Amino acid sequence: MTGKAGASPRSRAAILQAALDLCAERSYAAVTMEAIATRARVGKPTLYRWWPSKGTLILEAVTEQMGEPYFMIPDTGDLAADIRTWMHTVTTIFTDEQLRGIVAGVIGSAQHDPDLAAILHAQVHVSLSERNRERIRAGQERGQLVGLDPYLIEDMLIAPLWYRLLITGRPIDAAYADMVVDAVLNATGRR
Amino acid sequence: MTGKAGASPRSRAAILQAALDLCAERSYAAVTMEAIATRARVGKPTLYRWWPSKGTLILEAVTEQMGEPYFMIPDTGDLAADIRTWMHTVTTIFTDEQLRGIVAGVIGSAQHDPDLAAILHAQVHVSLSERNRERIRAGQERGQLVGLDPYLIEDMLIAPLWYRLLITGRPIDAAYADMVVDAVLNATGRR
Repeated sequence: MTGKAGASPRSRAAILQAALDLCAERSYAAVTMEAIATRARVGKPTLYRWWPSKGTLILEAVTEQMGEPYFMIPDTGDLAADIRTWMHTVTTIFTDEQLRGIVAGVIGSAQHDPDLAAILHAQVHVSLSERNRERIRAGQERGQLVGLDPYLIEDMLIAPLWYRLLITGRPIDAAYADMVVDAVLNATGRR
Repeated sequence: MTGKAGASPRSRAAILQAALDLCAERSYAAVTMEAIATRARVGKPTLYRWWPSKGTLILEAVTEQMGEPYFMIPDTGDLAADIRTWMHTVTTIFTDEQLRGIVAGVIGSAQHDPDLAAILHAQVHVSLSERNRERIRAGQERGQLVGLDPYLIEDMLIAPLWYRLLITGRPIDAAYADMVVDAVLNATGRR
């Protein structure tokens, strides 16, 4: 993480909390580095010394608050059930009035912020997605959800939720998540 | 469209061309309203009178250049074949070095630009997606791809391409598009 090396633990905690509080009060777009600095009672240069952009700072604040497992497939041994649990968790995040705006804002900013895109790529796509695909592979070795590439399974499950969040804005709920899971289970030959 | 009513046809064409030229020369993020105004030899206030933001202007420029059918399912009567053609067209757009950056940039900006989000919603999700779902429904009435909701079919086909473009950055190519199409055809019971 960008901020951990340089910031004193106390200032760092204050800054991350200020970022979260501001995200709770206004839209992601309306949160500025200036406002975070003022709220945390530090100088703006301090912020920029530790985080190259608003997106990287807020991503770190959100990641810390949510904890690691928020986007991870659980592991009870029943891959179909674990996938359904995971899709419901992501649905909960994407329907939370505050979190959905922050998540969409961070991904939106990553489209024109190379630093943020690099951090997202390392944290989310390499580390997290790789572990999710490991789960899918492990299930497949036990004979579950065979017949499709693990990358494709992960894409087909999670992409429709992202698509509705970022592009169409159509409703996301547990029933929709279940429809997606059922369709992917059908596509793998499991009925 | 925002710009059509107010702009003289000649200035409008010059502005849209300047926007496209600048997008070809630099990244979407690096194109500014200022630069578009300078290139088109108009004042910046002129631009803002017709387009509320860079995103709306560039969206209009790109939409006009690409023409209407760029994101539409064709209609030859064979839904499975038409879907494959459509997915290959979108793949071509998402792998074009210039277009992929513009498309990702516009969607990224829409996450914190309500005007752009509203225009995208009206143009893309209501008008375009509705016509795509009509195609899917028409095919289903002919007995093709039955068993899944048309919204879900559209999401499951197109969302993985958007997900790779906006989130994971993993490779998009015709082979990947075919894998997605095959999986969705399997999920609808057609093999």
